[in-house]
Amino acid sequence: MNEWPLFLVGLGVVGSATARLLTERSDFLASRAGVRFVVQGAAVADVHKMRPGFTPSFPLTNDPWQGIEDPAVRVVVELMGGTTRALDVVTAALRAGKHVVTANKALLAEHGEFLFRLAQEQGCLLAFEAAVAGSIPVIQAVRDGLAANTIDALVGIINGTSNFVLSRMRTGQLSFQEALQEARRLGYAEQNAALDVDGLDAAHKLALLARVAMGVPLRANAVHTETISQVTQEDMAFAEALGYCIRQLAIARKTACGIELRVHPALVRRQHLLAHVDGVMNAVLVHGDIAGATLYYGAGAGGNATASAVLADLIALGRQTAGWAALSLPKPTEERPILPMEQIQSAYYLRMRVADSPGVMASLSAIMAEHAINVEAIIQKEPSCDDGHVPLVFLTAVVPEASLQAALRRMQALEAVLGAIQCIRLAPVETL
Amino acid sequence: MNEWPLFLVGLGVVGSATARLLTERSDFLASRAGVRFVVQGAAVADVHKMRPGFTPSFPLTNDPWQGIEDPAVRVVVELMGGTTRALDVVTAALRAGKHVVTANKALLAEHGEFLFRLAQEQGCLLAFEAAVAGSIPVIQAVRDGLAANTIDALVGIINGTSNFVLSRMRTGQLSFQEALQEARRLGYAEQNAALDVDGLDAAHKLALLARVAMGVPLRANAVHTETISQVTQEDMAFAEALGYCIRQLAIARKTACGIELRVHPALVRRQHLLAHVDGVMNAVLVHGDIAGATLYYGAGAGGNATASAVLADLIALGRQTAGWAALSLPKPTEERPILPMEQIQSAYYLRMRVADSPGVMASLSAIMAEHAINVEAIIQKEPSCDDGHVPLVFLTAVVPEASLQAALRRMQALEAVLGAIQCIRLAPVETL
Repeated sequence: MNEWPLFLVGLGVVGSATARLLTERSDFLASRAGVRFVVQGAAVADVHKMRPGFTPSFPLTNDPWQGIEDPAVRVVVELMGGTTRALDVVTAALRAGKHVVTANKALLAEHGEFLFRLAQEQGCLLAFEAAVAGSIPVIQAVRDGLAANTIDALVGIINGTSNFVLSRMRTGQLSFQEALQEARRLGYAEQNAALDVDGLDAAHKLALLARVAMGVPLRANAVHTETISQVTQEDMAFAEALGYCIRQLAIARKTACGIELRVHPALVRRQHLLAHVDGVMNAVLVHGDIAGATLYYGAGAGGNATASAVLADLIALGRQTAGWAALSLPKPTEERPILPMEQIQSAYYLRMRVADSPGVMASLSAIMAEHAINVEAIIQKEPSCDDGHVPLVFLTAVVPEASLQAALRRMQALEAVLGAIQCIRLAPVETL
Repeated sequence: MNEWPLFLVGLGVVGSATARLLTERSDFLASRAGVRFVVQGAAVADVHKMRPGFTPSFPLTNDPWQGIEDPAVRVVVELMGGTTRALDVVTAALRAGKHVVTANKALLAEHGEFLFRLAQEQGCLLAFEAAVAGSIPVIQAVRDGLAANTIDALVGIINGTSNFVLSRMRTGQLSFQEALQEARRLGYAEQNAALDVDGLDAAHKLALLARVAMGVPLRANAVHTETISQVTQEDMAFAEALGYCIRQLAIARKTACGIELRVHPALVRRQHLLAHVDGVMNAVLVHGDIAGATLYYGAGAGGNATASAVLADLIALGRQTAGWAALSLPKPTEERPILPMEQIQSAYYLRMRVADSPGVMASLSAIMAEHAINVEAIIQKEPSCDDGHVPLVFLTAVVPEASLQAALRRMQALEAVLGAIQCIRLAPVETL
């Protein structure tokens, strides 16, 4: 398999996660990409800084040009951030004929057109899935999945800090300042959170989305921004009363006259999915002229989540050398058997009608206990006037299906249990 | 530009939409794909059948072998459905060395391993984005966007009919039969809805998702299914009381022992995004080991929505010939200007404190009227004990920002309006 020497610039949270994953799952990534990416080295500000949980197996330098000028290196991964030195690094890498993968939204929002043109002239790729909405493959969705569509509108929650602050103002009845303090305590906000709450970070990402989805040229200050810091607890309450909640939204929308590009607090009707994107999570709603509305949701930040996007760009780059075969399925694996239903694990909802007589609950509880089934919730209603039967509902903890079915058979056989017991599983989404 | 002759098998709802779009936006699709797909003809059961809203500009035949055996044809798009004749068609097309794009989940769930192997032997692509969750590019998200991840779990709402029925049982307090009748009336359910409500359709899609995401070999009856037809209004009410709603879920999940593959009704906590996927919409939650949970939402059926996925597969196929350049951005376009903020359109939330005196509402309303601003909702609270001021909130209809700002300036200048008027825009998501 072809080896592709790769050079990293920046070993912060995302850089370290990317480097670690490139090393740890080298074989796995190679099997997916069709080429093997080998980290040749990394440029960092301080080569002596401790990086907890990660010991680089490659040389560190504080001179990025060492890697960029190394003729063996084929890909430069820029994860240093900022727009000054990063511009020099990405420009030099492209000029040296290297593919570049970056998560740097500020750099691209400001210098993107120059850099994309340079990449094209150099016959190099400049990939940036990680620059927008972290783990969510939304650049790819817009570029590939919706490629047959004209995109009419994009509405995104693409700044986790702001979304956390507004979520907490609502759920905790906190003021903006209190919620921001909490975000800082939890590490979701920097000491200076202006980039986030005033909308500039979301504006950078929106500019990139609008570029990919609608061809809107990147230019500084094209996006109108308004801060969320003026939103008050009173607004939260009124919005609630009107059936809305308040989010920082990034909006790109075609109208008859042109394109709206704006980031500001906005009221979202509570029935809408975007009203349920809580905490630091991100989501982007994309409206295509034939696909209609589609939405993409996931973690917008974090080392691993963002590295997932960096690595997806690398895999796509590698796969391009494989031609259409890259789109074929890998071989199926028998590594894990498909489990017979008795071997699954789930929580359960059980609804039954029982006779209104003493000892019924004791019998049912005893059966559950004998099968080691923990009951998490019970609803028992008053007997109905018609027949004196008592509706009874149990929610169980997660237990093996076999135990549940065994208990169910015994409960069903009780004389006091009338008719069939209704059994519905709980979704395993909480435990993901 | 290279021309790729294409042959369609089946001109139902999806086939007609695909054919129409291939014709109508031929240039657009060619610019995206790097090759031009030209429909050579289509095989249909009845060449004389009227196809409202669509007049084929290519010859129709009732003999699919005409197209499949035509040496000029490079791609066969199978949209006929079924598993008998479709198997012959897809097999023959692959044997003839043609790439195949299909939306046929039943065919692939049953004969997928045979067909994927054949495609590989023949050096052909067998693509099926449209077979799972219509417009949502979820196959691609799993295969490409999350390519660096090991997928631990998938939880999907992937049968629109069942989701509509359960949604309506909840919102309309309908019985299963009543909700199903309504689905039939609206064209969301066939006369025989067993494939949908008993879970087989979702099982086919789940098998395909598990194949792509986890490498689980496709085999008949691998997925455990349970019907939603036994869910009662009583269950709906109890679920609600417990903080849940009921969905038909398709679940693939790795455990220590193996893989769970199951489709059945399930309780979903109301806070979870999946609880807000309503009506005929689809969504798939994917848990990757480094990306964490991501979710993909959109229309699961419909001619255009499904055609969007068929065309995405064709574009991906075409792009493979372009190498890595396919991943580059298209040129930016100045076609539409970025609008100055005054030219955007929005609905607005306005909150102010006003003096508790007669005529204030009249003055405010008059200003709104003079700027042609329609007010959709008003909340006026009783005066506060502290200062006798009245909190007042307006929600406006969608109006030009310039009108709103002009009105706002005049309202702000009123003596009876105390302090700054808070102005927050409404999200434009309802009108998408």
